[in-house]
Amino acid sequence: MNTIAVDAMGGDSAPIDIVKGAIKAKDQGVDVVLCGDKNLINPYLENHEIPVFDFPQVISMDEDPLKAIRNKKNASIVGCMQLLKDKKVQAVFSAGSTGATLISAISILGKHKGVIRPVIASVLPSLSGNTILLDSGASLDVKPKVLFQYGIMGAKLAEVIMDIDNPKVGLLNNGEEETKGRDVEKAAYKLLKNSNLNFVGNIEGRDFSTKKADVFVTDGFTGNVVLKTLEGTAKLQQNLISSALLDNLFKPLLIPVKKALQPVKDQLNPDKSGASYLLGVNGVVTIGHGSSNSEAVKNGIIYTETAVKKDLISKFSSALSEL
Amino acid sequence: MNTIAVDAMGGDSAPIDIVKGAIKAKDQGVDVVLCGDKNLINPYLENHEIPVFDFPQVISMDEDPLKAIRNKKNASIVGCMQLLKDKKVQAVFSAGSTGATLISAISILGKHKGVIRPVIASVLPSLSGNTILLDSGASLDVKPKVLFQYGIMGAKLAEVIMDIDNPKVGLLNNGEEETKGRDVEKAAYKLLKNSNLNFVGNIEGRDFSTKKADVFVTDGFTGNVVLKTLEGTAKLQQNLISSALLDNLFKPLLIPVKKALQPVKDQLNPDKSGASYLLGVNGVVTIGHGSSNSEAVKNGIIYTETAVKKDLISKFSSALSEL
Repeated sequence: MNTIAVDAMGGDSAPIDIVKGAIKAKDQGVDVVLCGDKNLINPYLENHEIPVFDFPQVISMDEDPLKAIRNKKNASIVGCMQLLKDKKVQAVFSAGSTGATLISAISILGKHKGVIRPVIASVLPSLSGNTILLDSGASLDVKPKVLFQYGIMGAKLAEVIMDIDNPKVGLLNNGEEETKGRDVEKAAYKLLKNSNLNFVGNIEGRDFSTKKADVFVTDGFTGNVVLKTLEGTAKLQQNLISSALLDNLFKPLLIPVKKALQPVKDQLNPDKSGASYLLGVNGVVTIGHGSSNSEAVKNGIIYTETAVKKDLISKFSSALSEL
Repeated sequence: MNTIAVDAMGGDSAPIDIVKGAIKAKDQGVDVVLCGDKNLINPYLENHEIPVFDFPQVISMDEDPLKAIRNKKNASIVGCMQLLKDKKVQAVFSAGSTGATLISAISILGKHKGVIRPVIASVLPSLSGNTILLDSGASLDVKPKVLFQYGIMGAKLAEVIMDIDNPKVGLLNNGEEETKGRDVEKAAYKLLKNSNLNFVGNIEGRDFSTKKADVFVTDGFTGNVVLKTLEGTAKLQQNLISSALLDNLFKPLLIPVKKALQPVKDQLNPDKSGASYLLGVNGVVTIGHGSSNSEAVKNGIIYTETAVKKDLISKFSSALSEL
């Protein structure tokens, strides 16, 4: 049985939406445990039998994660990682502070052998189904070799999670030509080109609407900005569309049209479909959007279990042996 | 009379679409001249009376702009800048190599007094109408003081072009908190906060769908990636919407719905509505999208004339005196 430890105190509407999400996941057959403040969690559990491990400290979004992990030994995310380290669970899901998840994973689980920097890989919607963007926020500034390792880890994730053979890896840059980019991109380009990866060269932001690459490699600053720009643009366009339909369409048509468009809205809504994996640590750790509602938490827990079932970590070990 | 020099050889479909765009702008009352290869331009001019200055050399997108400007004294963009320098025209519009436009403007027109780095400011669609993103690609790596100057120039542009009083300036970052970002953002934050600007703090990519800021300040690498991500996301969503409507909507409704949505598509299409200004040089210089069709070229020439009419440069001089 695969069990997922869920950080009950992480997220904008924790613990209530996290507990509700865990209950929904359990109802769909996923085995879960909760880490957090027992007194705050129990009222929402009602008569659902989900084990609670009492780790009452909370790390907030604006705390320095390094200090927080050092000082709060009873933080909920620390509890989750400890359970994973002790093999009492097989994976961790948190919608809390990404920095705290990252630091606690590195310090408790340890980095995967050979990995310079663990990385956050986010699965994004695309024309061909999904693409992977990494790093979406773990390390703001990185060396070329780190970007190269992101390429290897991203390709393996695409292979295991999205069942893509020989995934196309691109380097996010400010133009297609080999000469483009800052020094870090120019050097990373060479490393990626000379590797065994299916490297398709430099790609641009507009390639989110093409099928040019399955994996987008970039530093954590750029990746984080891109991720949120995707979200912002999708919402902006949806708002503009709502206004345009109101202005230009015969009113009785509004309801069927909005209904027809709902799936697209959901697909581009990170609360409903965003999945992020922390790669390069010794264990399956996934990260939910801070604004996750109970539905998003449920989905997050389910894809976390899928990663365990697909044996993500042991498949990574062989891929990373070449690092 | 304000005359605009148009770079006839710059752009993916130059000179044909550039010449056609210039003719359309002229038909709408804008005085234009063309710089480029006379033999290639004249056949498209038919009987339209637009002066052509013969500068037959072309700088392609993948040339090193610095070398190109040094070696090609008869490049079309060099001709445009020379006319502006000699006050034979009042502004330059080019859809060609951005690097070549930047380098030729700096070397021929000169930098505005006090400006460390000229910058490309792009006007983007937003909920409140428009926002300005800068830098969208002039300098990939910059110092904090350069970002601070971008804030001043962007605010002045928003005031002059978009008629916004005391525009809200935000620093694009990987989170809202003051502690977020790389060293460059942390230092720029302090400079912006201690200035006379209406600084609203750190903003994120998702704020393209809020009204939090009128001006988004970032380095040219991030800005360029953001600009293209906006474009890519808009197109991705449009494609997903087309499929969803085809799948889910009663067929006879497709035509009115697509018609109702067309204005949104246009608004988010850089070929139709993108405007970019090169700020910090001694003259009005604007930059069109490389893929501009004749309609986009016409629009580009018209907004260029508007900038001249609004006296952009002399208003900048007073704003930049505090640098």
